[in-house]
Amino acid sequence: MELIQKLKWRYAAKAMNGTRVPQHKIDAIIEAASLAPTSSGLQPFEIIVVTNQEIKERIRKIAWNQSVVTDSSHILVFAAWDNYTPERINKMFDLTNTVRGFKNEGWENYRQTLLHSYPQRDAEVNFNHAARQAYIAFSQAIVAAAFEEVDSTPMEGFDPDALDEILNLREKGLRSCVMLPLGYRDTEKDWLVNLTKVRKSKDELVTLIE
Amino acid sequence: MELIQKLKWRYAAKAMNGTRVPQHKIDAIIEAASLAPTSSGLQPFEIIVVTNQEIKERIRKIAWNQSVVTDSSHILVFAAWDNYTPERINKMFDLTNTVRGFKNEGWENYRQTLLHSYPQRDAEVNFNHAARQAYIAFSQAIVAAAFEEVDSTPMEGFDPDALDEILNLREKGLRSCVMLPLGYRDTEKDWLVNLTKVRKSKDELVTLIE
Repeated sequence: MELIQKLKWRYAAKAMNGTRVPQHKIDAIIEAASLAPTSSGLQPFEIIVVTNQEIKERIRKIAWNQSVVTDSSHILVFAAWDNYTPERINKMFDLTNTVRGFKNEGWENYRQTLLHSYPQRDAEVNFNHAARQAYIAFSQAIVAAAFEEVDSTPMEGFDPDALDEILNLREKGLRSCVMLPLGYRDTEKDWLVNLTKVRKSKDELVTLIE
Repeated sequence: MELIQKLKWRYAAKAMNGTRVPQHKIDAIIEAASLAPTSSGLQPFEIIVVTNQEIKERIRKIAWNQSVVTDSSHILVFAAWDNYTPERINKMFDLTNTVRGFKNEGWENYRQTLLHSYPQRDAEVNFNHAARQAYIAFSQAIVAAAFEEVDSTPMEGFDPDALDEILNLREKGLRSCVMLPLGYRDTEKDWLVNLTKVRKSKDELVTLIE
């Protein structure tokens, strides 16, 4: 399958060469992230796309000084909602009604179920739930980058509070979860580029209950 | 791009027809999940593949009685490590050395960094971190199913503690995060099959920092 070939081609580039990724490829990667399924369709995250070099320099300082941060073309920052609020839930349910052009009783009952459970939970529980949804989209962005033959570096190695401050995320009710620098591998400088991909065996990964 | 077409074809099937998914398609979906990137390459999760109908019936009871649970062909349960332990970390670092055939000082230093930070953290923090990695793989499995023209239903709507008990996960140091029933849509019975996919606008999703 073509997908498997793309996933084998992909690796977490540790050095990039600064070449710009064309806009149509960035658009496709973001479209893939947008199409990702999320719990109750809430899409509880936003994507901050950083191309500004000064901001990249500031991010690099709070990201273990990793060179891909500044040598990437674009950085996608996946930032999840810091909490589920009635406003946010209602907005997505209303959007669904608008797009589909009708109201449905089952769907409205489901809205009430969420309104009576999510906002009452601890904000940290809600953020962790929202972050998982962001990771689903993040993963689809990684796959899309591989299809576009764009290298990407899944990256959790940064100070999320500092990144939130650099990008003013908290005032928008967002918290950064994970970054995805996009660009092109620097094959001369990247220690990882020629190393074998390591995965545990299928026996260790999978248990069958037949 | 072919990927975008597949992602648009995909939806969360709400009714399935019981038809069996061929083994080679299941294998490809699991391979895609296995190829997913994870933090430090730890792959801190396992996949339980359920085809046993009695077990599916038991799962359905703790999953809001959703019919896809029993009418699916296979259920993939993504279960994350309940904690990071020195044994688990060492096992993955050792595997890397074995597969690549050499020891590397930088990599060994990184092993020590993880050994001196992860196991000391609260188990809940570690589980939440591991769960996010499981979601990256889960997302790649969803994409792979779409490529195989297999329907899937991303599903968090179940009692994770009860599922852990049904599958004996806690004794293996695992906790269930999310399920993915796989099968084929029942177009007659599925209320969602013909409804428009709803996504927030690109303006609401993306912020550019240029």
